[in-house]
Amino acid sequence: MITSPIASAPTSAADLPVVRLLPKANARAIRHGFPWVYANEMVVDRRTKNLTPGSLAILEDSARQVMGIVAVNPLSKIFCRMLDQNSENVIDQSWFAAHIGRALQLREQLYDAPFYRLIHAEADGLPGVIIDRFGDTAVVQPNAAWADVHIYALSAALVAVTGIKNVLKNASGRTRTLEGLDDVSAVLQGQAPDGPLPVPMNSAIYMADLTGGQKTGIFYDQRPNHAFAANLSNGKRVMDVFAHVGGFGLAALANGASSVLAVDGSAPALELAQKGADAMKVADRFSTRQGDAFDVLTALRAEGAEFDVVICDPPAFAPGKPALEAGLRAYERIARLAAPLVAENGILGLCSCSHAADLTQFRTASVRGIGRAGRRAALLYTGFAGPDHPQLPQLAETGYLKSLFFRL
Amino acid sequence: MITSPIASAPTSAADLPVVRLLPKANARAIRHGFPWVYANEMVVDRRTKNLTPGSLAILEDSARQVMGIVAVNPLSKIFCRMLDQNSENVIDQSWFAAHIGRALQLREQLYDAPFYRLIHAEADGLPGVIIDRFGDTAVVQPNAAWADVHIYALSAALVAVTGIKNVLKNASGRTRTLEGLDDVSAVLQGQAPDGPLPVPMNSAIYMADLTGGQKTGIFYDQRPNHAFAANLSNGKRVMDVFAHVGGFGLAALANGASSVLAVDGSAPALELAQKGADAMKVADRFSTRQGDAFDVLTALRAEGAEFDVVICDPPAFAPGKPALEAGLRAYERIARLAAPLVAENGILGLCSCSHAADLTQFRTASVRGIGRAGRRAALLYTGFAGPDHPQLPQLAETGYLKSLFFRL
Repeated sequence: MITSPIASAPTSAADLPVVRLLPKANARAIRHGFPWVYANEMVVDRRTKNLTPGSLAILEDSARQVMGIVAVNPLSKIFCRMLDQNSENVIDQSWFAAHIGRALQLREQLYDAPFYRLIHAEADGLPGVIIDRFGDTAVVQPNAAWADVHIYALSAALVAVTGIKNVLKNASGRTRTLEGLDDVSAVLQGQAPDGPLPVPMNSAIYMADLTGGQKTGIFYDQRPNHAFAANLSNGKRVMDVFAHVGGFGLAALANGASSVLAVDGSAPALELAQKGADAMKVADRFSTRQGDAFDVLTALRAEGAEFDVVICDPPAFAPGKPALEAGLRAYERIARLAAPLVAENGILGLCSCSHAADLTQFRTASVRGIGRAGRRAALLYTGFAGPDHPQLPQLAETGYLKSLFFRL
Repeated sequence: MITSPIASAPTSAADLPVVRLLPKANARAIRHGFPWVYANEMVVDRRTKNLTPGSLAILEDSARQVMGIVAVNPLSKIFCRMLDQNSENVIDQSWFAAHIGRALQLREQLYDAPFYRLIHAEADGLPGVIIDRFGDTAVVQPNAAWADVHIYALSAALVAVTGIKNVLKNASGRTRTLEGLDDVSAVLQGQAPDGPLPVPMNSAIYMADLTGGQKTGIFYDQRPNHAFAANLSNGKRVMDVFAHVGGFGLAALANGASSVLAVDGSAPALELAQKGADAMKVADRFSTRQGDAFDVLTALRAEGAEFDVVICDPPAFAPGKPALEAGLRAYERIARLAAPLVAENGILGLCSCSHAADLTQFRTASVRGIGRAGRRAALLYTGFAGPDHPQLPQLAETGYLKSLFFRL
């Protein structure tokens, strides 16, 4: 059992402060599973304003009916996150273990090997908490204040339920900033790997850098979309733009692509991709090109390059609403620059991980870009994040990952 | 070469009548690939009103610029369907062969065995034409008047390009009625099979009745969604409601389901499902129950039945806008009746093939039904029709098939 100076002792309901909804708040939606209460729906007085970020409270509706145990954060727009509608429950290690066990059961049903997103926040019952599993090692992103407070109980439960050896805390990322949290990463249990970890997915091997890389080192969310593209790549010339550690490209090689060019702005990412290709013994069919994707696409056009399958999986161009218009223009530009490189009857895959751009907006921008390149497209496939990224239906409109595959 | 009294001889552009857009029509959208012109966008005079349904014409914009070759049908709301933006082309057997060849290339890339939707109408360049392939036999649904007129050139091209032996015309269905067409099915080439054909898909074997069954005997569109459900069914108790010939159920058995109950209102469909289970040698794990799905779900509840995976794939409850409200209520009711039969942490799959109900409406109705049953759900998966059902992006909003999988 891990102990820590900042870990709060389990607290029973009787000891918790009470916070209350305003009459205008949608108590019914919360009772039916909506997991958040915004600051403007709460009775906020000096006492609630002074609650410690991440502390627990009992939520009542405006008629003082108990609604459940919430985590509060006066520094966040999301003032309360519902943890448990049963206010008799105690948020302790066994509570975490129950949620992690339930999540684990699904992933073991879905996948043969222990490489997946184990906890995907609200839909897995742990609001704001992301846990990615890489065999014996897990990376926790506690993106809400309450999870920081309970991180040691969470980590201990994780080890107890899954039997993993190493638990890393990754505190980088925009979401923690919105919650007013620090960016100090740490080793919570065991030790950090002393190099990139090999991750098997879709018959490929990816090298994940769990301490130096982007987010948690690899993106599990694209798994079904990688598989779709790989199935179309047998014997084909493939280009993977914004390749990161080789997501689409290495899956295509595993499925018999005749060649893969991986393009990325990050030299360390491409080095990991190269290591993956080496581990798969497909380096003879793999090449990389480092540079700004817009520049590389333009240069390839000038060089007369042609591919049978081109996939562009850029970072979020429209992470929030203020960036929406510029983001959609960037998606259109990517499509316009990539389409001319696709052979007749070839495949163009375009992805967006922008929350702010919905499916229709992203598809419209993509189709406009393809049209401006003088090409016509049929839409073959619309994919989202894989099932180890479940969503609360109440938040499903915000599903961030969209993956469109066109035939040109 | 097949000849027929009703087959029109190939006609060059100079011989074709001209039809013209009104200034208010969106000529730009049509030039960019929108495939239809509605009657209220056309200059309609006595001459155009008297054009034979299904005849060809040259479309001009309101400034008399040629836009391409269209098929006209004065009896349909869709007055013109764009066949070819190059008005010099001739709509003959080799024109059909080029489109079928291009479509075939994609399907051969996608699938190991010749069982798929070969032509999916507009996105495969043959407006209103559906062709499903079952090995050596194809079933053509000419759901637009022009395709009826050219059916023999189409059939000859189909045989020449694919090497299949038998071509059946299926003239049933609502779409032909909207086009003012008859419902007389026929054998266009070779012969009709003298019994159900075995169709391999997702490691299962389905029995397709190509002459007596619903539509073209089997639904290829659910293939990726069958695969998703099957992957979750290993060792599980599965119920397939509105099973037809066993779509979800037999795929689940192929993936190791411990038991499958198939429910359908149609005894002939369940007989075919049983024959499929027999052919797969999994009949010991397969049972059927004939009856109205709403009644059977209610009865199973009373019997205390429980399943790990329940999938409901009903016929279109909201085929058109007038039926939308009633249709959404029916989807909600299905969810409400099915959810109580799902074990804790089990899976509920809900499908809609209604054009009129969009994804958000269908998801909302489903989630409401689950909630009314007192259950909570996380959304694992949103699927659409498979990639042998491509769409024009301009028509993508109308994508009819939605498949949602929840964990309860």
